[in-house]
This record gives sequence, C-alpha cells and structure tokens, in this order.
Amino acid sequence: MSKLLTDLIEALRCLPGVGGKSAQRMAFHLLERERERGLRLAQVLEQAMQRIGNCTRCRNFSEEPVCPICASSSRDRQVLCVVESPTELAAIEQATGYRGQYFVLLGRLSPLDGLGPEELGLDLLTERLAEGEIEEMVIATNPTVEGEATANYLADALRGVARGVVGDGLHEDGDVRLGAVLGDQRGAPAVEGRDDLPDV
Amino acid sequence: MSKLLTDLIEALRCLPGVGGKSAQRMAFHLLERERERGLRLAQVLEQAMQRIGNCTRCRNFSEEPVCPICASSSRDRQVLCVVESPTELAAIEQATGYRGQYFVLLGRLSPLDGLGPEELGLDLLTERLAEGEIEEMVIATNPTVEGEATANYLADALRGVARGVVGDGLHEDGDVRLGAVLGDQRGAPAVEGRDDLPDV
Repeated sequence: MSKLLTDLIEALRCLPGVGGKSAQRMAFHLLERERERGLRLAQVLEQAMQRIGNCTRCRNFSEEPVCPICASSSRDRQVLCVVESPTELAAIEQATGYRGQYFVLLGRLSPLDGLGPEELGLDLLTERLAEGEIEEMVIATNPTVEGEATANYLADALRGVARGVVGDGLHEDGDVRLGAVLGDQRGAPAVEGRDDLPDV
Repeated sequence: MSKLLTDLIEALRCLPGVGGKSAQRMAFHLLERERERGLRLAQVLEQAMQRIGNCTRCRNFSEEPVCPICASSSRDRQVLCVVESPTELAAIEQATGYRGQYFVLLGRLSPLDGLGPEELGLDLLTERLAEGEIEEMVIATNPTVEGEATANYLADALRGVARGVVGDGLHEDGDVRLGAVLGDQRGAPAVEGRDDLPDV
C-alpha cells in the first residue's frame, strides 16, 4: 500500500469508534467515490480545529467570541443550565424545549486529574451570577459519582451568589429524565418540583 | 450550534456508515480531546484526495506513477491476479500469501452504468499480457452476477493473449475461499486445481 494511503488510514483512527478495518474502508470509499466531499471534509476539519474555541460567556464551542445562544435575543436570560460538556448542551437543545441560557463546565470536579473549580470556570460562573440577571439555575451534570460531586460542590459554592433556587438537574438516564425536567420550560417553571430540592 | 461546527458535522457524513448522530459525536470528540490529531487528519486527507491517483501499470491506488507492488523486485512477475477494486487487492494482500502482481479493473462490466471494457482498462491489460512476462492469470472478481459476467468476459477476451492458463479466482465468501485459492502461492502453483477449470 502506498505511503500516503497508509498515513490516511492511520490518521482516520483518531475518530471515536474507528479501528483499523473501518479506517481502511473509509479511506477506500473516499478515494473511490467521494473525492470532492473528502476534500471538503479536509478543509472544514482544518478550519474547525483551528478556529473553534469557546464562548467567552458560556464556554460552549464557538468560533465567535460569543456563541449564538448567548447572543440570541429570543432566549430566556433568567434561567441558566449548567452542563459538563458541549455534548450535553447539544443533547438538551435537541431533546427538550429548554429556552434558557447555559454554562459549560468543560469537565467535572476530579482533583486527581487536576480538574478543580478553576478549570471548571467557576470564577466566570460566579461573575455571571453576580450580574444579577439569572434568577434560576439548573445543575445538569451527569449522573456519575464525579458528576454528582460536582453538582453538590456547585450548589454549595454558589448558594450565596444565586438569587433564585438552585434546582436539581441530575438525570438518571441522559436525555430522558433531563427532558422531563427541562421540557416544561415552554411557559412553565424551569424546574419541576424545584421547591422539593433545596439541598442539592 | 455555531456555523463551523454544523458544517463539520455535515461534512463528516461523507464517511461510510456515519450518520448525523455519529458525526456529531466525532466532531465533539475531536474538538474536546483530539485537536492535534484532527488537524493531522485534515492535512493527510487533503493530500490524499489531491495526490493519490492510479498506478499506470496495475491501476491500484498510488501517489507515484508506479505503485510499490508493481515496482517491487521481490514479487513474482509471472502471475497476475485481476480484481475489481483496490479493496479486494488489499484483502488479498492481508489475508493470503499471494506474491504475484495485480491488475485492478476499478469496476465490473455494467453496460447500464456505462462501464464497458474500455472503462475496465482492458486495453492496458491486453498490453500487459502481450509483454509476454505473465504466464498465469487469476481472475478474482467478486461472486456477484456482474462479477461473474466480468470474469467470463475477461476469460474469453484474453484467451488469445494469455500464454498460460486462465484460472478461476471466483470466491464465494470474500477472503476465505480466495485465501484458499491463493494461499498456495508460497512455492506452489498459483491456482489449485486450475486444470479442472478451463472454461471460466
């Protein structure tokens, strides 16, 4: 096999779930039938890797200083949903009717991995809450040990700052329960039964 | 979602077996954890799409005018294996001990799709055989209706040209039977039982 083809197959393995066999199949497919789209992928991928950074306000992926959600005038600016990563943010956007704002931690508390409050952007989150616009915050970290520890830490650390109730966004089953929690945003309270959950 | 991220997810769908959900997972994975490898993939992919052409001798993928197999001095120059695509060539290289040369049709006879003898490079193959070096040819097209029709056509068309026996490389189950046929190359005849198969 030619050097460049071997390099391409190896490079494709950076994609999640793609082993040697899939990578080879992808390389042959592109070369045989999809050269133009392959070239387009190369160009978009290069731009994305170089130019997509994080929104200065919510830390979601964005190639602009402020992402479309933060910049939107049609979203509810009084509710803030805190998630671990852009993946969860996208899942909430796609599966629920949530129309508030977000804050992305880009991780979860994990001292052994060097991930402390600073890495999670808590100073930025504190500033954001101090602006006084947010009236309700939903903590929607993942239902893992670290995710729940992060939720507890956030609830404690931000109690003095947040003016509203800190809701429980923890979900057992990814999208489903989170959808149930956030789905009522359409004109209803952001967090169902939030009065029952003062201790999170 | 930002424009560039949406574009990246859409562009990743050119990969075989990758739908919207996988594409999104890939994009987030690269942005969150694999920026350098993602950038490397972009660069290699661009080079591959632009620079990989076909070997002038066997029509396999190659960024050089003559591919490594055709250029190799350690391969048997008297046996030629005809395959439909570079995918089959790679499968034979990886699964068998075949040490001869190849010719890649880059397709199969399919008049309705405009694929006739010319598109399959039969003039090049005829020239190659006329050089007089090839003593045995294995036709290893796929076990489909079109693949078998192609094998029959080749066997007829090249009968006057080939000096040796035209063997039957048809295989029922991809690698397996082909492996059985070609595996004996290590010092043994190229095609097992080829004397029984004069009519292919």
